[in-house]
Amino acid sequence: MHHSIKSLAALALVSFSSLAAAHGHFKQEAIAIRDAAQADLTGYHLVRDLTTEVGARMPGTEADKRAVDWMVERFNELGFDKVWTEPVTFPNWVRGAEKAWINAPFKQDLHITALGGSVGTEGPVSAEVVMFADLEALKKANPAEVRGKIVYIAKRMFSHIEGAGYGDAVIARAQGAAVAEEKGAVAFLLRSIGTDSHRFPHTGMMSVRPTIAAAALSNPDADQIERLLAKHNISVTVDVNAGFKGEYTSHNVIADIVGSEFPEEIILIGGHLDSWDLGTGAIDDGAGVGITTGAAVQFLKKGQRPKRTIRVVAFANEEQGLIGAYHYAEAHKNELDKHIVASESDFGAGSVWSWVTNIAEPVPAWMDVARAVMMDLQIPYNGNHANGGGPDIIPLFNAGVPVFRLNQDGRDYFDLHHTADDTFDKIDPQAFQQNVAAWATMLYFFAQQPKVESDHK
Amino acid sequence: MHHSIKSLAALALVSFSSLAAAHGHFKQEAIAIRDAAQADLTGYHLVRDLTTEVGARMPGTEADKRAVDWMVERFNELGFDKVWTEPVTFPNWVRGAEKAWINAPFKQDLHITALGGSVGTEGPVSAEVVMFADLEALKKANPAEVRGKIVYIAKRMFSHIEGAGYGDAVIARAQGAAVAEEKGAVAFLLRSIGTDSHRFPHTGMMSVRPTIAAAALSNPDADQIERLLAKHNISVTVDVNAGFKGEYTSHNVIADIVGSEFPEEIILIGGHLDSWDLGTGAIDDGAGVGITTGAAVQFLKKGQRPKRTIRVVAFANEEQGLIGAYHYAEAHKNELDKHIVASESDFGAGSVWSWVTNIAEPVPAWMDVARAVMMDLQIPYNGNHANGGGPDIIPLFNAGVPVFRLNQDGRDYFDLHHTADDTFDKIDPQAFQQNVAAWATMLYFFAQQPKVESDHK
Repeated sequence: MHHSIKSLAALALVSFSSLAAAHGHFKQEAIAIRDAAQADLTGYHLVRDLTTEVGARMPGTEADKRAVDWMVERFNELGFDKVWTEPVTFPNWVRGAEKAWINAPFKQDLHITALGGSVGTEGPVSAEVVMFADLEALKKANPAEVRGKIVYIAKRMFSHIEGAGYGDAVIARAQGAAVAEEKGAVAFLLRSIGTDSHRFPHTGMMSVRPTIAAAALSNPDADQIERLLAKHNISVTVDVNAGFKGEYTSHNVIADIVGSEFPEEIILIGGHLDSWDLGTGAIDDGAGVGITTGAAVQFLKKGQRPKRTIRVVAFANEEQGLIGAYHYAEAHKNELDKHIVASESDFGAGSVWSWVTNIAEPVPAWMDVARAVMMDLQIPYNGNHANGGGPDIIPLFNAGVPVFRLNQDGRDYFDLHHTADDTFDKIDPQAFQQNVAAWATMLYFFAQQPKVESDHK
Repeated sequence: MHHSIKSLAALALVSFSSLAAAHGHFKQEAIAIRDAAQADLTGYHLVRDLTTEVGARMPGTEADKRAVDWMVERFNELGFDKVWTEPVTFPNWVRGAEKAWINAPFKQDLHITALGGSVGTEGPVSAEVVMFADLEALKKANPAEVRGKIVYIAKRMFSHIEGAGYGDAVIARAQGAAVAEEKGAVAFLLRSIGTDSHRFPHTGMMSVRPTIAAAALSNPDADQIERLLAKHNISVTVDVNAGFKGEYTSHNVIADIVGSEFPEEIILIGGHLDSWDLGTGAIDDGAGVGITTGAAVQFLKKGQRPKRTIRVVAFANEEQGLIGAYHYAEAHKNELDKHIVASESDFGAGSVWSWVTNIAEPVPAWMDVARAVMMDLQIPYNGNHANGGGPDIIPLFNAGVPVFRLNQDGRDYFDLHHTADDTFDKIDPQAFQQNVAAWATMLYFFAQQPKVESDHK
């Protein structure tokens, strides 16, 4: 990576050589804050309360506003030094009633949900279903096969600890409806981009704006369609009420613990405050908000401010295209060189199994100490080649801000992701607390790292 | 047990003493049919096709009729000697749209489903929620606490290999709404009688007919209500469209393989053909229909009829009160003494871990051979004290018909029971085939058992 801002910012990260005694103190403090974090339930209670007292909080809904107010209150209650909001405006996508059923060879209900950005059908639309294995197959199809029909894409997502199956599958969600429309389809269905076998369809945003309705089938409903298609021509009716209605202004909610020595140097962490409307946004991403806030508050509980500023951002509208994240990067573009590292927790609440960085080489000597303190949490360091720091960090990473990332076990993340089943009970408290401890450890090292005077600009 | 019919029927079951050579042949044939059954997918394909080609088949729906027609066709196709239907008439309970939401302290959707037999609310009903730990607590409540409110019963069901938590919890479903109504409640909600943590409410029949609407909350929604009630008074709106509409006539579907030596002696097995409307009735009870039919067809595939008649009954309307089962017992009351044993498979498709009987003492000598043949499937014999042979066998058992029962691992049965998630993908093929093998083994021994002439009336 060759980012000029990163190179500048990296000046903060250089070694303080081998001051073994200082290392000893450094390590002891890190262990103390790590262990305090692991035992402290502040973050866990935050995700419990966010999912309970606010619940689902889709961008543009009244719950989005309640979430922003709730977050401001919580940051203030917890004693952050500065708490403020920054407006984020976006097109307001609204979901209404939605249903679908097989109507021939016989009637059978289907569990569907409209994809984000879908239009409505303006009454029921019935047509024969034509199946494609994946987006590529649809792209190659002769329009005569598709015209007047409902396209169904059968691509299955596989489960993987890092969610590696998502990228491969999600492209059908992002673009499928637009390709289907081009070829004359009257509606678009796909097998949910999810790894479960429960009767929950997975929603999620499209990257395009087709003018035919687009919806996901739950995986068992997709199985059913495929078993039927093996024997019959089938006709399905889709009745979806959805669409964009004007604009909405939500807010990034930002809270600083101001650094005692280098207040202008920012360690940025956070999660996204919005969720989809179907569940209550526990693993996506109440957990991230709770984990990162729960880690940061350890520095408030100590009574002594960290050397550098710790900033927690509860991003607005991640789900519909990282809208809060891009807004943050734009609004703070003149101070990104002061963001010495950034990371988001947005992959559920599964335990962390490795950590990675992408900071200027050579990595500082304190990394060795950090590696040891993290290893006690069963989290090995996997190198300085992180390809990002989480979805809402993409705009910062692209602008050269150094990142770290705590890799979580995501094998069940896509069982729940974007479904009604994303609720608080799915969070394992023990794994959650390991996350909080790991984040507090990261914060400690990045915030308290010593600085070699000659290297500091 | 002291049933006169049982004592008569038991005459068929006496020992053929210690004819070791005959035992040897007997055992070899049993093993052959058991192993053929385990390898044959007829039953598995039946449940696949019933759940796919018919789907959900609630009593009284057009799908109920399609199920009956489908079952008649399948029995005929499979080559049963006699296939017929017997009409079963019952009140027709209909489910319409149903929804509920928290409206204070803030709006949040709840996942509910009306309990079987519920009336509708005739528009949205909003009221404060009052919680009770269980039915007993509600019974003890002062009506002043309940009047004008929505009663919520929080009783949790625990998981158990034999489903032992069901009886304890289900009484709140059976009677809760009637008790709530007596005390002046305007609607009734309960935590689903189910052991999962998914956002599926579990439906199921009430044993009473209250005139307030009654519905189950999914377990995560019940958690949410309880977390909120710990901090707030909450108001909920229930909007349920449901009720009885006239009568409907469905059919028990019955198929015989006529015995070659003692055709009048009947071994009755089966499952229930109906399901709830939310799922496609795979584990409840497509599996039972598939398992028992799949076992019986082994005797057709042999080409040689069993000594006694094997009768498979696909019972109508089990879900709303064993209606087909009571009809069968009544219609056949004069020939119950010819039913030498009866059993139903209606506890999902989990593997069988023990078998039990309730037949006249002393148990016949061939039971020792049967025990050995079953042990190869990891199924030990657990004694002659079975308290029944499955739900639809209750009327027969009460009338003195001997029974056996194959106990299945039901630890996940109540995760899926009566929910939208009861779909074909939940059936484990390996466990299913072990069931078919065990049923075929039971059929073999009961149908082929030798008879000591002097003991036969």
